[in-house]
Amino acid sequence: MRFKAMVLEAFGEPLRMREFEIRELAEGSVLVRTLASGVCGSDVHIAKGEDPRTPVPIILGHEGVGEVIEVVGEKKDINGEPIRPKDRIIWNRGIVCKKCYWCTVAKQRHLCPNRKVYGINMTCKDYPHLLGCYSEAIVLLPEVEVLRLSHDIDPCTIVTASCSGATAMNALDSLAEPLVGKTVVVQGVGPLGIFIAVAAKSLGASTVVVIGGSLERLSVAKEFVDVSLNRRELSEEERKKRVLEITHNRGADIVIEATGDSQALLEGFNLLRRGGTYLVTGVAVPQQPIPFSVYENLVLKGITVQGVWVSDTRHLIQAVNIVASRSKVFEKLVTHKFKLEQANEALECVEQRKALKAVICFE
Amino acid sequence: MRFKAMVLEAFGEPLRMREFEIRELAEGSVLVRTLASGVCGSDVHIAKGEDPRTPVPIILGHEGVGEVIEVVGEKKDINGEPIRPKDRIIWNRGIVCKKCYWCTVAKQRHLCPNRKVYGINMTCKDYPHLLGCYSEAIVLLPEVEVLRLSHDIDPCTIVTASCSGATAMNALDSLAEPLVGKTVVVQGVGPLGIFIAVAAKSLGASTVVVIGGSLERLSVAKEFVDVSLNRRELSEEERKKRVLEITHNRGADIVIEATGDSQALLEGFNLLRRGGTYLVTGVAVPQQPIPFSVYENLVLKGITVQGVWVSDTRHLIQAVNIVASRSKVFEKLVTHKFKLEQANEALECVEQRKALKAVICFE
Amino acid sequence: MRFKAMVLEAFGEPLRMREFEIRELAEGSVLVRTLASGVCGSDVHIAKGEDPRTPVPIILGHEGVGEVIEVVGEKKDINGEPIRPKDRIIWNRGIVCKKCYWCTVAKQRHLCPNRKVYGINMTCKDYPHLLGCYSEAIVLLPEVEVLRLSHDIDPCTIVTASCSGATAMNALDSLAEPLVGKTVVVQGVGPLGIFIAVAAKSLGASTVVVIGGSLERLSVAKEFVDVSLNRRELSEEERKKRVLEITHNRGADIVIEATGDSQALLEGFNLLRRGGTYLVTGVAVPQQPIPFSVYENLVLKGITVQGVWVSDTRHLIQAVNIVASRSKVFEKLVTHKFKLEQANEALECVEQRKALKAVICFE
Amino acid sequence: MRFKAMVLEAFGEPLRMREFEIRELAEGSVLVRTLASGVCGSDVHIAKGEDPRTPVPIILGHEGVGEVIEVVGEKKDINGEPIRPKDRIIWNRGIVCKKCYWCTVAKQRHLCPNRKVYGINMTCKDYPHLLGCYSEAIVLLPEVEVLRLSHDIDPCTIVTASCSGATAMNALDSLAEPLVGKTVVVQGVGPLGIFIAVAAKSLGASTVVVIGGSLERLSVAKEFVDVSLNRRELSEEERKKRVLEITHNRGADIVIEATGDSQALLEGFNLLRRGGTYLVTGVAVPQQPIPFSVYENLVLKGITVQGVWVSDTRHLIQAVNIVASRSKVFEKLVTHKFKLEQANEALECVEQRKALKAVICFE
Repeated sequence: MRFKAMVLEAFGEPLRMREFEIRELAEGSVLVRTLASGVCGSDVHIAKGEDPRTPVPIILGHEGVGEVIEVVGEKKDINGEPIRPKDRIIWNRGIVCKKCYWCTVAKQRHLCPNRKVYGINMTCKDYPHLLGCYSEAIVLLPEVEVLRLSHDIDPCTIVTASCSGATAMNALDSLAEPLVGKTVVVQGVGPLGIFIAVAAKSLGASTVVVIGGSLERLSVAKEFVDVSLNRRELSEEERKKRVLEITHNRGADIVIEATGDSQALLEGFNLLRRGGTYLVTGVAVPQQPIPFSVYENLVLKGITVQGVWVSDTRHLIQAVNIVASRSKVFEKLVTHKFKLEQANEALECVEQRKALKAVICFE
Repeated sequence: MRFKAMVLEAFGEPLRMREFEIRELAEGSVLVRTLASGVCGSDVHIAKGEDPRTPVPIILGHEGVGEVIEVVGEKKDINGEPIRPKDRIIWNRGIVCKKCYWCTVAKQRHLCPNRKVYGINMTCKDYPHLLGCYSEAIVLLPEVEVLRLSHDIDPCTIVTASCSGATAMNALDSLAEPLVGKTVVVQGVGPLGIFIAVAAKSLGASTVVVIGGSLERLSVAKEFVDVSLNRRELSEEERKKRVLEITHNRGADIVIEATGDSQALLEGFNLLRRGGTYLVTGVAVPQQPIPFSVYENLVLKGITVQGVWVSDTRHLIQAVNIVASRSKVFEKLVTHKFKLEQANEALECVEQRKALKAVICFE
Repeated sequence: MRFKAMVLEAFGEPLRMREFEIRELAEGSVLVRTLASGVCGSDVHIAKGEDPRTPVPIILGHEGVGEVIEVVGEKKDINGEPIRPKDRIIWNRGIVCKKCYWCTVAKQRHLCPNRKVYGINMTCKDYPHLLGCYSEAIVLLPEVEVLRLSHDIDPCTIVTASCSGATAMNALDSLAEPLVGKTVVVQGVGPLGIFIAVAAKSLGASTVVVIGGSLERLSVAKEFVDVSLNRRELSEEERKKRVLEITHNRGADIVIEATGDSQALLEGFNLLRRGGTYLVTGVAVPQQPIPFSVYENLVLKGITVQGVWVSDTRHLIQAVNIVASRSKVFEKLVTHKFKLEQANEALECVEQRKALKAVICFE
Repeated sequence: MRFKAMVLEAFGEPLRMREFEIRELAEGSVLVRTLASGVCGSDVHIAKGEDPRTPVPIILGHEGVGEVIEVVGEKKDINGEPIRPKDRIIWNRGIVCKKCYWCTVAKQRHLCPNRKVYGINMTCKDYPHLLGCYSEAIVLLPEVEVLRLSHDIDPCTIVTASCSGATAMNALDSLAEPLVGKTVVVQGVGPLGIFIAVAAKSLGASTVVVIGGSLERLSVAKEFVDVSLNRRELSEEERKKRVLEITHNRGADIVIEATGDSQALLEGFNLLRRGGTYLVTGVAVPQQPIPFSVYENLVLKGITVQGVWVSDTRHLIQAVNIVASRSKVFEKLVTHKFKLEQANEALECVEQRKALKAVICFE
């Protein structure tokens, strides 16, 4: 069998369509026909060579949903049920070693230092090549953790659960208390921010406030959040005033950074109440340090700060559940769809922030 | 000012309408015109003298919503904002001592052994008398913790948050993990069971199953839960089979007892997955011991069991938020409304399990 | 290479010395010369055929410490460092599947339903045979999680960490709060109870009370616990009185069952304070149900009950740390030492409760 | 009765001995003869006027241990037992309002914005004047939460539990997991750092590393910590190397800042392992912002940071338990003792960092 894929052969150059042949696969492997492949903001960074983990050549794409073509031998999904041809599936994009301290002792598998990720640090140079989602087919190695999906949901919608969705859930999963009765401020209305906002609402948050700069995106958010604040219309002081009004002058119980910009923390700390929690999820590449006032930001108010890095299979399951229960909302999130051969356009569209979420859809 | 109230003067006798005069009240007291007074299942037990805490004479009723008539001096609500005449309010029905080990050290105020409760262990013999909600007016002592309500919600609906609602939230608040991705089985479809089921769904539970015996109540539940099982139609074995089918043969992540019957635990333990959690909330009076198999029920599966007793102000706030966000559902919960002078009929209606939730509504 | 081992060939019959030959082993395997093999109370049950998981023939023994003879290929310990010949090691006696819901999603690996355990459910019928610790050598399969030990501690002492020690730590690891300032009652002064008592003290418990029936064992406990109560000298009522005296009339914050007898729970619940936690760790085989008063035992006091089943690698590491830091205490725990050929005597000694802890020591 | 006290009448001026008369006290008040009064580092800042909360005139001193002279009416300690003349007591130096969101809902009483603190924001201008511990006697208002002490421990030792001790325990109390098996790095060997180090060890930490700059203080620490690193002898790079060596190249599980210097965080973040926790406890006054690299310090490693502000009664109890169980260590902590009339010398001694802990002892 031969499959086409868009390959990054050198950093900074356009992806090129290449063809790969799949012959035999190892016991426990699953060959998957791609149905949807999400275009993540970090793909843009990777394509430029800004992520030190990434080798070339590589098939980009770490967010995928597919249909099983073939299972070599037996392979069970995360629920212990056998995977079969025609099954629609999603999977944990990362493969952890299951042997290190984080995997076996610390209960923090997502922090495994040996974690391999489809489309990020797995080259296509060697067989079985198809280790990225910008491809007609994907080879899931035996270690990959797979979740079967119902056929009710559009693959191009549910694919949002794969990376930003699962990371959003990792953030919320780290909270020590239920969200009911709480006020949550989400900074950023990109795919991650919107996912977090919807998920916070789905987990019972009483008041969800989003802060963003794009009218278009804020109007998407408006349908399901309680308050949306446009940072092009309201000054930082005015935004703080709004948050204080909503919270009986206390500040937000939880602030979640989903802008990708370290500078956002300077505002975020000011919006928190004494004893509040800050989840920092969006800053995914090195940036200039920010000036951090330890006493005012952290100690005096007894603040908890949680850095949120990638996600684990439990978060993927949670994300799939959120998308499935609010599929109408998430359909709207996918504002741009592309064909595989348009992958370079898709990347450009994401880089120029035209799309809320761009997805490569197959057939 | 003079107010009428329905008084229990001797156990086992009908409540009698009496009138009380309110003159001066202590600094920080709030005089409240009652808008809605919930009739709790435990009121039936109390009226018969089955609750050893209860003195006579007493004005029954621990669930109330009201409008402020007068604030003596200054009194702030739980958000630090002053309470004023015409404010619509709800309050924590219990008053804790704020001095004992549970209040100051253990962070378990609801377990304060000195807890006083309106309509349960506060007699009307002494001035200011009006310490129960089956009354035209209620005197909130300075220690009472008050929450102001919006005027958007019908008092007869929001009053469900007061006791069963807050207890439901105490149960869910004790969970160590978010409910998203989880299967929850609720045993019982009375006011407590239904509140828990709606709340579990509102907090993100992926699948909520209720088990009940009343077709009428199950049909109310059907609108918002995922699966409802009629224990008059399905055998215990069949119910277990259904739960296993839904959970990939694992059993439920969480089972919540809300039947009031200890016997329910015998089924409940069998429905839990390894590592699951059992919240026992409904058993509110002493009953015959049940035969408990420590190895099979508890140890072999690594089960966590949490006994849930009453609630705290944090749970009241949570409950109010749940009702406010799902008011249409909770309106349907209130199947029977009574006038104050019909309090005896209301108790009878609850005793005969005719009502899902009965409320005394004023005007 | 040939090694002798004591084999259970039929339930109820004495173990017989057999010899096994080790030729080639799979990549990642470790061949270990046994230094110490603990005789667990459950070995007695297993030998009689009371554990349904156990096949015959089997080499008994799930608690082991050894010295590495050979590593086939490369194998790293839990800290990511290569294991080498002459290393002294201990290991997680259980092998989990790393694929199921409990291993990948629920963060409860010890509850993996596919868990295999050395000396409990791994037969010696097939090559490489040496899958129990009553043997001169043990073959650690590639999946086994290994911890290297310092050479400072006597293997016959540190082996107590392997099963009862790790289970004790699983119990304490499940507590939501630090033990400092807390009163802990431990029911039972067998190896598990004593380990729990020492560990609770090591984790900061302010007052540790043990309840036991053996003067000899209580005298061992006396050296490091705060209060020891002899249930042959003090009535249940007197014991309760003592616990109330110690706890300002509240009852214990935490009670831990380590007797192996379900009946102990009847006393245990009465010793808990409102809001206390009950850890049930010792009941390891099916027993008659006990009469359980749901209202009084569980709900009215808002009690948390945790069933504790076996343990995970994190608990093994914790147990090794406890033994290492209190080695003098644990040396005394090992009251009886046997040679391999005396394994039947060792079992008898444990069955007759002569030993506090019996260990088969090699060389 | 008349009592002498050392009063700060104007910022920057020496304290002056004044005399106050105590006549009648409110019901529930306790008049206490001071036995020991700790001199906290923040007293130096307060005396200079650097703490905006502080009014003048004020009797400094928020750390006290005393003997009851008189109880007006009835007053119970935190365990519900009556306080009587001659009782030796310690108390929560802060008084919280018990009414606000933090006190009643958030379970974070120590963050109460209405918190009053003896010797910090309670002036001596008005009767009953004696609201600071640099005084022969102290008036405990009815709201103060009191703990009775055994007479076995020297008051000048146990007084270390009052402020730095309780704050140390607040830090450790916020950890989500037991310390056993963990490596803890404590930055700073002042009274706070040493208390944290001893407490971490007492709560089961397997390896405690302290980093400090004073040979004398490090030599005190050496007796009970596992590793002490002198930052005057070892470069930051060397210190990091040592921590990595100890932790199998992972970094510390927990780092605790107790230097009072925001700059310490720059080193601290580099010492943490992926998934580690940073407790920031020492930075008690505003300072210059530090350059904070959000990606490297926080997100990439999935770090949790907890700002720790003051403490609650639960932490005081914990601290008293720690001191009582390690009194020999804490005796050594108190390197300088002064008489009341030497309070200015005591402050100078602390300012010049001559003392590890200075205490005003009353005969």
